[in-house]
Amino acid sequence: MEIASYVHISSNIHQTLSELLASDSFTKVIVLVDENTKKYCYPLIQAVLPTNHGVIQVKSGEEEKHLQTCTQIWTEMTNMGLDRKALLLNLGGGVIGDMGGFCASTYKRGIRFAQIPTTLLSMVDASVGGKLGVDFMGYKNHIGVFQEPLAVLIDPVFLQTLPDRELRSGYAEVLKHSLIADPTHWNDIKSKNITEFDWLKIIKHSVGIKLYITTNDPTEKGLRKILNFGHTLGHAVESFYLEQPGKRLLHGEAIAVGMIVEGWLAQKLGYISTDDLAEIVDTFIRVYGKVNIPEEDLYAIINHTLQDKKNENSIVQFALLESIGKANYDQPISAELMKESLDYYRGL
Amino acid sequence: MEIASYVHISSNIHQTLSELLASDSFTKVIVLVDENTKKYCYPLIQAVLPTNHGVIQVKSGEEEKHLQTCTQIWTEMTNMGLDRKALLLNLGGGVIGDMGGFCASTYKRGIRFAQIPTTLLSMVDASVGGKLGVDFMGYKNHIGVFQEPLAVLIDPVFLQTLPDRELRSGYAEVLKHSLIADPTHWNDIKSKNITEFDWLKIIKHSVGIKLYITTNDPTEKGLRKILNFGHTLGHAVESFYLEQPGKRLLHGEAIAVGMIVEGWLAQKLGYISTDDLAEIVDTFIRVYGKVNIPEEDLYAIINHTLQDKKNENSIVQFALLESIGKANYDQPISAELMKESLDYYRGL
Repeated sequence: MEIASYVHISSNIHQTLSELLASDSFTKVIVLVDENTKKYCYPLIQAVLPTNHGVIQVKSGEEEKHLQTCTQIWTEMTNMGLDRKALLLNLGGGVIGDMGGFCASTYKRGIRFAQIPTTLLSMVDASVGGKLGVDFMGYKNHIGVFQEPLAVLIDPVFLQTLPDRELRSGYAEVLKHSLIADPTHWNDIKSKNITEFDWLKIIKHSVGIKLYITTNDPTEKGLRKILNFGHTLGHAVESFYLEQPGKRLLHGEAIAVGMIVEGWLAQKLGYISTDDLAEIVDTFIRVYGKVNIPEEDLYAIINHTLQDKKNENSIVQFALLESIGKANYDQPISAELMKESLDYYRGL
Repeated sequence: MEIASYVHISSNIHQTLSELLASDSFTKVIVLVDENTKKYCYPLIQAVLPTNHGVIQVKSGEEEKHLQTCTQIWTEMTNMGLDRKALLLNLGGGVIGDMGGFCASTYKRGIRFAQIPTTLLSMVDASVGGKLGVDFMGYKNHIGVFQEPLAVLIDPVFLQTLPDRELRSGYAEVLKHSLIADPTHWNDIKSKNITEFDWLKIIKHSVGIKLYITTNDPTEKGLRKILNFGHTLGHAVESFYLEQPGKRLLHGEAIAVGMIVEGWLAQKLGYISTDDLAEIVDTFIRVYGKVNIPEEDLYAIINHTLQDKKNENSIVQFALLESIGKANYDQPISAELMKESLDYYRGL
């Protein structure tokens, strides 16, 4: 199935990648990997790559998603003598896709790149929508650009290379897409166990929602903001604990917290019922458990939201649920109310 | 006169800047300066800036146009808490415009920026066309993006703040625009002294040529390549001597060399006559004198062209003159011929 001309979701990465490589005369093909995707994913595509392809390997992890790693990538691209008709294949999760896409989009003012996401999170979220960038001064994706990839090649085969915790993290975005845009799908999946799914079907549905939203509002002037549901406080929680190695959360684990507290805000503002909130809380606690957030961390977390890209003039704008399966955006929320929402979570 | 809706050329920067600032509700206005434009140019616009505007100051010079300076700019932008509706005014020459535009285009995936060029070079060249970026590993503008500014405000008043050598450097691009696109204008100006000009008129004419070309081919697929006349070997000469403080050339001085040697290539390939070449040589030597290029430097200079963004697969493509006032592009030139052209220059 093709849901957008450049997004190819199939169980045959050899075929979709071969077609991409034959679609134009690229002067050089380079694969960006980390030590994990080099070991587990690269062998799954190596057979169809041109024999003279190049490989650039960076260290894995969100904590490596910064300008110093970009400098390493740009340096290796330069040393390989890449010209403007080279193609970069980003083989990995969101970090590889966001950072590799940013490096490609800025090398000689832009060469083409394709995303080959290997995590559920990057398949349903990061690989689609054209948001690229790296973290800066502790702020997520603070330096970056909007640029669509030449192609996104999704194959659930890579999910078999993934630890369970990573699969669960990506599933948070699947749940989010249903919560903000498809009540029927939410009801279908909310009580299911993630071992039960046909991932090809789940991914197609979830990417379809993301594509519909981002195609209608590529640069986040309006509608696209609903994708930020769970992310304002979720990102703040993620960023805060990123600097504390023992407490580090995966992206999905952090936005699961965000969806509960922002669900509480939606109920507080009268958008959803207490029953709706209970359903949301039950679903996320069942899958993700509860994160311990000490009281002394709350102010740093709240303060973090003030630097979020979504805000203007120090007013923090949230995307909230209007009902189960429908979201709004530009909802101003005070620091006091944020504090209350986090206290609610702490009291669960 | 308005030659494109976002380019405003006038002798009244107070009015054009006031109109820009009133055109939208910017949450914050920041001015990027270096120590020279802070001292000589900033006082000329300060009166019309909002009282709470911010100033970011970087060190002047092409040798400061790199990612470390971007990091300084991004850090100050972050510390000022700039949101996505902030506006950056780049007050300076090409370095400030290219680097400030790149930083704005990548901060939170892009805020708006306006160019207020203060050098002749940046007025007629760098401020128009959307090419932004910084140098990397010794290669000019190696990391960057294509992005049009919200506005370009040009006022010749800033030229009074400029050393003669800088004015002469910018004039090389004026001569280039005529040589590649307007034989009548070339004949008008080729023998004149730069002290005689009505700059408002010269700038309008020159920017008009650049805009016509870049509007018709914004991402350099074809026509735009003619702007590279004089720049393939000119850039190589500029980059090579950039690392040798005593021999450093201004951009226009380097491309004046480039226009002579690439003029020789055009004559060698039979495009222009020996009389045409003599006319070009006389004009550039009269204005810029002759640069001493020792034989031992030639190979490093030629090697530099191989990393140029214009090339594919190690074949060096030149923009050459088809006749006086008309240029072509994608002319493959061998290293041997480049060496001969530089030897011709050395023998003048």
